This record gives sequence, structure tokens and C-alpha cells, in this order.
Amino acid sequence: MGEMVDIIIIGAGPAGLSAAVNALIRGKRVRIFSNKDNKLSKAERVDNHLGFYHMSGKELMDKFKEHAEAMGIRIEEGKAVNILPLGDSFLVNISGQIIEAKKVILATGISKIRELPGEERLLGSGVSYCATCDGMLYRGKKAVVWDQSEDAWEEANFLQSIGVNVTFVSDKPRHENLSDNVEYIKGRIEEILGENTVEAVKIGNEIIKTDAVFMLRDAVAPDALIEGLELDGSFISVNKHMETNIPGLYAAGDITGKPLQLSKAISEGLIAAQNAALQIDKKES
Amino acid sequence: MGEMVDIIIIGAGPAGLSAAVNALIRGKRVRIFSNKDNKLSKAERVDNHLGFYHMSGKELMDKFKEHAEAMGIRIEEGKAVNILPLGDSFLVNISGQIIEAKKVILATGISKIRELPGEERLLGSGVSYCATCDGMLYRGKKAVVWDQSEDAWEEANFLQSIGVNVTFVSDKPRHENLSDNVEYIKGRIEEILGENTVEAVKIGNEIIKTDAVFMLRDAVAPDALIEGLELDGSFISVNKHMETNIPGLYAAGDITGKPLQLSKAISEGLIAAQNAALQIDKKES
Repeated sequence: MGEMVDIIIIGAGPAGLSAAVNALIRGKRVRIFSNKDNKLSKAERVDNHLGFYHMSGKELMDKFKEHAEAMGIRIEEGKAVNILPLGDSFLVNISGQIIEAKKVILATGISKIRELPGEERLLGSGVSYCATCDGMLYRGKKAVVWDQSEDAWEEANFLQSIGVNVTFVSDKPRHENLSDNVEYIKGRIEEILGENTVEAVKIGNEIIKTDAVFMLRDAVAPDALIEGLELDGSFISVNKHMETNIPGLYAAGDITGKPLQLSKAISEGLIAAQNAALQIDKKES
Repeated sequence: MGEMVDIIIIGAGPAGLSAAVNALIRGKRVRIFSNKDNKLSKAERVDNHLGFYHMSGKELMDKFKEHAEAMGIRIEEGKAVNILPLGDSFLVNISGQIIEAKKVILATGISKIRELPGEERLLGSGVSYCATCDGMLYRGKKAVVWDQSEDAWEEANFLQSIGVNVTFVSDKPRHENLSDNVEYIKGRIEEILGENTVEAVKIGNEIIKTDAVFMLRDAVAPDALIEGLELDGSFISVNKHMETNIPGLYAAGDITGKPLQLSKAISEGLIAAQNAALQIDKKES
């Protein structure tokens, strides 16, 4: 599992990078993970973040990354799949790699994930967010991979290659790189069925039998990442110190709610990191 | 009194400038006043505000001003002396000039002002924060000017020139530009005495009779600026929308409390301005 880090930051947009910079300045060992392009990069022009006038989102994101990199921060690729609180630390599953950390900062941006009926109930009982984590459990069995991210076809191929009998469900045409051995169904999953474990999925009027459903989205919904996380609508509830209801777990940026603005995200990243660092120092002094 | 403005911003540090930029972007008429150099300008180096690495406080402040100026914002010189809520608007006294505004944003930075015994009780009854505002009331009478800012000597000379009998109290040597007609006492005022109006000041063991005391500080303490303002220690209490307990009055930046950080000040300026603009739009729609 490797050395315990002080703070894991999930998300490397403005909030995550601000958190990383501030945690480092407070002398903390930090790892920061990103799973996708930040949405800021797509903004045509940003005028309302003081100090940067008339810049594109991409230029701004580059400035932010330059700052972090100049301080020695390296953004690692990886998707957070699960967070397990142990009391004084957390076990964080990043794309199948388990990392122990004293504090966790969630900075994954606005979540537009809508869960399927049956998804939360059967999570861990056939519903999985990570092919590399859970694939081996379904060798010789049937699994449906639902295409919800750009590299979902890769994960389907991976599962097929380790001996899972894979059906790829997508509302786009069959991906050219999808392995010939993988079955393809055009459509959308509407419901996940099963008493205690996954038994089937509903696609349109059809019921397709399966032992597992891999939901390969770009990100996992925050309340599926960690049990008991308190939400306010689709946002994570935080207090003024950016603490969630789970001790040691912080959230910052768009994921905590309006206004969905750069200046706010950067401020919240700073506040989360400073408080996480302070709590570590208190414990260790 | 001139045209009513939408938003008056008091203070032109990072919080005030961020508020100005965001109010302008929301289509609001803004005036922004500054009375002193921002303390950021004195920071040797700032590393923890994402996007700006290894810059001096002065370089950062210059960037912020450039941004505001590029958008047509002009910082005016002036000290807020009093804010009077009228229900749907405010009358704001800026160095004796009265301006009407729909909303007010206080962004004056951290306040280190300690009030003197007797000061608050006798405010408006001989205690004044503004020579140009109240000077005429004391023509032919005695006034003490307490040296608490770099240009206090100018105000003393002004009062003397309009016929006030001025005593200048300072713990520094007699200022070379202080008019020869102005009496000078080396010392510190410890208390302001008087039943219903100012009668004297206490300097060390001496009691000096006077009809007025001009406290020419760089800034007026927030709770002396506006009656009934709720504080939390020496900071202004705000909710997450940066609203104070006085409807239409917002606060942003170091004046609202810890962490005293650039990123937070800029975020709070944005939030205050966006909410003030929203409230104006709601009222007018």
C-alpha cells in the first residue's frame, strides 16, 4: 500500500490545485489525482477572476498548473472509486490502487451524475465503478459494461481479456476499437434488477440477464464514493472550514454549490487545505 | 448629492477590487473608494494564491488594479466616515461628500482600531472622524486633533484656517508642515471626558479642556461607521452570501475574519457583489 500520505486531493481543477499548493506550503505530503479535463479548460473567456483579464479558460488552467508544477506538485491520473474512513485515516481506492491518507479533499467539480434505479442498492453486489478493481470477481461470468466515458471500450476489452463474458451497452455506434469478442447492444440502461445481487438490466423493453454491471463513468457520484456523506441537493454540505459531515473529509469548489465560480473554488481549496493541515498538526503536536 | 449609484465599495484591496469587477460585469454602476495603501502591497512574497507564483505583494496589487482599470473602474480617494441606512438605500459620507447607494460593500481590511474610553458615547457630540465634515461647527471654539494618520496635520491646518482654535496632539515630534498657529502637545490621548458633549481629553496626567476631538485615523472602526452592525470579536459577522445583519450592507475580505488570505478576499468580493447585484435585479424586475 506504500507510505501513508498526509492529504489526498481528488480533482485537479482550480479548487484541487489551490488545495495542493496550500497543503504543500504547510509542509504536508500531498497526492493529487485527476480523471478528466477540467471544465474550466473549455471556457472561452473569463473576465471576473481578479488579476486575470481577458483570458481563455485554457490559458488560466495552464497558469494554475504551472504554479503547482513550479512547486513540485505532480498531477497523477486516476479515478476515485471508493473512500473508506478508518477513524484516524482513510483508505482511498484510486482506479484500483489503495492509498492510505490522513485527510481527503474532494474537489471533483460539479456532479451531473444521475444514478439509475437499483444502482445504489446493488453497489458492491454486482454494480461496480471500476473494471480493474472488481473484474476478477466475474471471470467466467456475464458482465454488462455501460458506456459512460471515452475510454469505456478499453475497460470492456480488459474485462473480456481476463475471461469475463462482456456485453457493451452504448447509445453511440459500436466503437471501432472495441474487441471483436465483445458483444455490443445499442441502447441505454434504464434500471438495474436483482434481489440481493445483480440479475439483469433493463434496456428499452428488453431485459438482459447479467451477473454484473460496470458503470464506467468519468467520475463516481460523491455519495457513492463514501457512505453517509451528507448532501444538499446534488452538492456536498460543508461548513465554513470546508469540512463535510465525515471527520477528516473536506470538499472544495463547484462540488460544494453556488456560486460556481473560479474565485470561490480557489478560496475553498485554500481553506480546505489549511484546515486539513491544521488538524494534522494538532493531532501530531 | 448627485445620481444614486447601485453599489458603493469601501476599500480597494483584493476584496474591494474583486467586488468592483464583478458588480460591473453584472451591469451595475459602481463607485469604489480607498483611503490608504493596501497591506498586500507590503508583502514581500506571496506563493499561495493559485496562478501567481513567486510574486511580491506590490506586483500582485498592480495586476489587480490593472484588471479593474482595464474594465474602466476608477479608484477614488476618500475615507468612509458614516453610513446611514434609509431602508431601500444608504447615505454614505465619504470624507464629507454624501453619496446615495442601493447597496454598500465594506472591504476595508483587518481593523486594528482600538476605541478610546468615551469615544463611542460622545461620537457626534464633539467626537468627529472628519474635519471637513464637522469643522464649521467649531469655529471660534477649541478642538483637539489627534494625530493618527499621515495627513492629520493637514486637517489640523484646515480647521485652524476656518477659525477653529486647534491643539494638535501627537506622540511624534511636531510635524514640520503644521501651521505655526496650531498649538502642539506631545502625548497620547487616553480618554475623552464629558457629560453630554465633549468637555476635555486626558493626556497622561493632564486634563486638557476642549469642545471637540477630531480622531483623524486612516479608517473608522466598522461598528462606528454604521449603527447596530453585528461583530464577531473584531470582525464583521456575515453569512455565506456575505450579508451583514444590516439589510443591503455586505462585507468581504479580511474584515470578515480568518483565514486572512488573498484567495478568500477575492472570493468574498465576488460573492458580495454578485449577491448585491442579484438583490438589485430582484427589486427592479
